[in-house]
Amino acid sequence: MGSGMGRLLAERSDLKISGGIASREGKSGIDIGELLELEQKLGVEAVNDPSRAITEETDVVLNATSSSIVQVEEEIKFALRKSCNVISIAEEMAYPEVAEPEIAFELDQIAEEKGVSLLGTGINPGFILDLLVIALTGACLRVEKITARRINDLSPFGPTVMKTQGVGTTVDEFNRGVEKGEIVGHIGFKESISMIADRLEWDIDEVEESREPIISDVARSTEHVRVEPGMVAGCRHTARAFKNGNEIIVLRHPQQICPEKAGIETGDYIEIKGDPGIDMAITPEIPGGKGTIAVSVNMIPLVLKAEPGLKTMTDLPVPSALPEDISGLL
Amino acid sequence: MGSGMGRLLAERSDLKISGGIASREGKSGIDIGELLELEQKLGVEAVNDPSRAITEETDVVLNATSSSIVQVEEEIKFALRKSCNVISIAEEMAYPEVAEPEIAFELDQIAEEKGVSLLGTGINPGFILDLLVIALTGACLRVEKITARRINDLSPFGPTVMKTQGVGTTVDEFNRGVEKGEIVGHIGFKESISMIADRLEWDIDEVEESREPIISDVARSTEHVRVEPGMVAGCRHTARAFKNGNEIIVLRHPQQICPEKAGIETGDYIEIKGDPGIDMAITPEIPGGKGTIAVSVNMIPLVLKAEPGLKTMTDLPVPSALPEDISGLL
Repeated sequence: MGSGMGRLLAERSDLKISGGIASREGKSGIDIGELLELEQKLGVEAVNDPSRAITEETDVVLNATSSSIVQVEEEIKFALRKSCNVISIAEEMAYPEVAEPEIAFELDQIAEEKGVSLLGTGINPGFILDLLVIALTGACLRVEKITARRINDLSPFGPTVMKTQGVGTTVDEFNRGVEKGEIVGHIGFKESISMIADRLEWDIDEVEESREPIISDVARSTEHVRVEPGMVAGCRHTARAFKNGNEIIVLRHPQQICPEKAGIETGDYIEIKGDPGIDMAITPEIPGGKGTIAVSVNMIPLVLKAEPGLKTMTDLPVPSALPEDISGLL
Repeated sequence: MGSGMGRLLAERSDLKISGGIASREGKSGIDIGELLELEQKLGVEAVNDPSRAITEETDVVLNATSSSIVQVEEEIKFALRKSCNVISIAEEMAYPEVAEPEIAFELDQIAEEKGVSLLGTGINPGFILDLLVIALTGACLRVEKITARRINDLSPFGPTVMKTQGVGTTVDEFNRGVEKGEIVGHIGFKESISMIADRLEWDIDEVEESREPIISDVARSTEHVRVEPGMVAGCRHTARAFKNGNEIIVLRHPQQICPEKAGIETGDYIEIKGDPGIDMAITPEIPGGKGTIAVSVNMIPLVLKAEPGLKTMTDLPVPSALPEDISGLL
């Protein structure tokens, strides 16, 4: 993700990559253009030490290192304390008061103190199963129930994603992996549900999550994994939120490799039961990698302009593709 | 539209209708609950004189009287000068610098001076063919072309809409009506195009609009109009915006009665050619009447919270359906 953001930024004349932090020791000292496999060097070397990349001169730091707030907390605090705005794609940062309310409070305080803003975003959480859902309810007189599905294709992803989604396991291995917390499915359901429920002021009694194996009838394979018939091609992860005992928000995110082999059409679907009812489909789904890179980079001008503090996607105006020169938006 | 807003507001315990202005003389002095055909009186009478309905105590004025800025200018100025926030569904108010840049400037100044905000909105312009389009480009690395279509059903509308859309005319009558400016089609294309183009900083060379008769093969009729085969069932209104000579934004809004009689499925469709490409469909379309009532009322908390001045839908956070009590959003 960081490389994709870097490549998008490197193309632009109105934005300058002033530094880059490599997690792997061996990348330190290498020109960022080279690391991004660009035709030209950028004249800026990757470093391992954040203090050499992030300074008071930095306008915005893009954080793309982990899904969990606890893992990114110190990185973000470091940047905020240097008076840098921060955009993080850590899934839990999309609505940080869910996973870590105390850290969220601290981050908000530091950002306010330093006069900068902090946003967690990405395609999901951050856009499809929350921002877009909320925006569509805006055309409703009343809303009774929300069901949203993101049916996507995991084929382009690497070994880590295959492992956390249980792709290529047997059903037994899958079930054990879920039990042990090694097969996690999607990270972000709780964040998306809270984003929606808080905006609609729905008191949620409880959120139930289930992770089921998507058992393949056919052989499927990618560069990184092979799934024989009867084995697991992915994880059918569902979250259900209840209000006064009634199912009120259902988010479904079955993720698998080669869905087309099973005749499955991918897409993003939002169904609002209400007055009027709304039935939206984006087919195929907005791709996760490009979508997350785009949303996070596209929010740069809005984050630069935002009031200081911790923000969510529902606090700020909608994103748009970046114009050739963002200075007009500032 | 005003009655629909009134009925939605009357249901709520957190919002109070403090006054209502009737355009027709005969409605003055009648309880608003009665005018809205509610079961109970509201204890507030409709008046003809704005100064009896709008006072310094009024938080927000909903303006639903005309499509044109020139027609609503004085009404809005009156409310702003009383330090009231204003939400207008006049189509031209969705992006007022297009039709009336000087009035837009003045309205912005008055609103800023009085510390209140002013928003033009509605389902379209204001939501489908602009806000939603812009939001979806936010998931794109780059955008080459935007095509959006709103295919709707005019059957529920009254005689005025039938006339301005040319429903029930012969082809000759339709063409003469367009020439004379009596058959106008959709109002708002220029506003939607400028909203999109300004946000993406696209320099538009020119906008071409065409209004063609939708000639019916079959008989269609509503309470207000009858269309024989060979006659006009509606107006196929299209706007094309060009950048450097290339078609870059195409908005299509064919409006007709009984589209199902011609086997036409209604819907809102947005197609973005770019990286990634995005193909969105809402089927059936979000109904225009309910959608406009919902969006305008649902923006109340966001307008109350907004910085002073003239705002557009792209300046503010996305709308949502109103919670039971909006005080939490303020």
